[in-house]
Amino acid sequence: MQIGILGTGMVGRALAGRLHELGHSVTVGTRDPGATLARSEPDRGGGAPFRAWAAEHPQVRLATFAEAAAGAELVVNASNGHASLEVLRAAGADHLAGKVLVDAANPLDFSTGFPPTLFVKDTDSLGEQLQRTFPEVRVVKALNTLTASLMVEPQALPGESTVFVCGNDAVAKQVVTDLLVELGHTDVLDLGDITAARGTEMYLPLWLRLMGALGTGTFNIRVVR
Amino acid sequence: MQIGILGTGMVGRALAGRLHELGHSVTVGTRDPGATLARSEPDRGGGAPFRAWAAEHPQVRLATFAEAAAGAELVVNASNGHASLEVLRAAGADHLAGKVLVDAANPLDFSTGFPPTLFVKDTDSLGEQLQRTFPEVRVVKALNTLTASLMVEPQALPGESTVFVCGNDAVAKQVVTDLLVELGHTDVLDLGDITAARGTEMYLPLWLRLMGALGTGTFNIRVVR
Repeated sequence: MQIGILGTGMVGRALAGRLHELGHSVTVGTRDPGATLARSEPDRGGGAPFRAWAAEHPQVRLATFAEAAAGAELVVNASNGHASLEVLRAAGADHLAGKVLVDAANPLDFSTGFPPTLFVKDTDSLGEQLQRTFPEVRVVKALNTLTASLMVEPQALPGESTVFVCGNDAVAKQVVTDLLVELGHTDVLDLGDITAARGTEMYLPLWLRLMGALGTGTFNIRVVR
Repeated sequence: MQIGILGTGMVGRALAGRLHELGHSVTVGTRDPGATLARSEPDRGGGAPFRAWAAEHPQVRLATFAEAAAGAELVVNASNGHASLEVLRAAGADHLAGKVLVDAANPLDFSTGFPPTLFVKDTDSLGEQLQRTFPEVRVVKALNTLTASLMVEPQALPGESTVFVCGNDAVAKQVVTDLLVELGHTDVLDLGDITAARGTEMYLPLWLRLMGALGTGTFNIRVVR
């Protein structure tokens, strides 16, 4: 499948690298590819600059948001939550129309320090904001409940864990579910329409407390039933 | 242990019944014991009236909130979240001072229908409100992340699952952890101080979506790490 990944951070890199290994044709989108490749300082999360990752993944293309979206059959929003609407506008509503968009972002607000709060919650969600702003996009909220490395290698944990999908388009959810299974996920739960993104996004404060208590982000939840 | 349970709903009944079976001396507190026992209609959740339950549990005492708290070494807040502050005021700050209070309530607001929203969240929590209002009480948030029947019989699920404690008093958390182990919980995670109640309370919207998707409240999460 032709996949466009919007965002060059940990999530974008993890998904791009693994989806390429699985045989997909992957293009990573960024605002200014030249500027992204020129940066030599560590990225915001303290990771290696993108150009070091790109050098190890020569078959993953880097392009503008618009180019990455235009050439894709499926698009992943791997941008920061507060930038997501702007990133999708840069990708272009015309380029996104009719396509499946996996929204892996969280509406985290770090403006008052750590732990972050959520800039939208409870009566609305980032997933719904994206769906409302781009009504022709088939938004599926997924993968926002676990750390990047586990998105693409869930079997690194000593036991089965659960991931979630929600969205208004049943076919789009099936496409994303199949992709999650390809990535190694064995328990994919459909939570219903896109309003269920309120649930998976509001899980983040618990996730952050768990990370603090466990001293690692390498964990996930399993729904035991 | 002398245990006072504030609330006569599903949570109060489940905990009172099981803690009595385990050998504790249990008093359930309510606003007006006579009125509680006089009611013959189903309760708000559609369950049997309290007096039917009480007839099957003659050794569990029913008393006022104040009497239940006064005689207890450990108190459980099993009231509805929107009533909790008022219930604790009725129990009496003097009767609660120095005692461990297990806060099992959730700040659910059903005023706009289903699913409910949270009347406090993200920058504050019900657990913190209770701790601030009753600074001499040793509040431990616990058991608000699963359905009543699983609070007291976690082994009913086909696999180990996780429960959480948080609070400002380490000794109080250990007392509650020991009680959870007595109830059959095998994975009790300490999330830190009472501000972590923001995390476990904000999990509720996901819990409600899971209940909708699974068609049952008989599930829990396990933190796989």
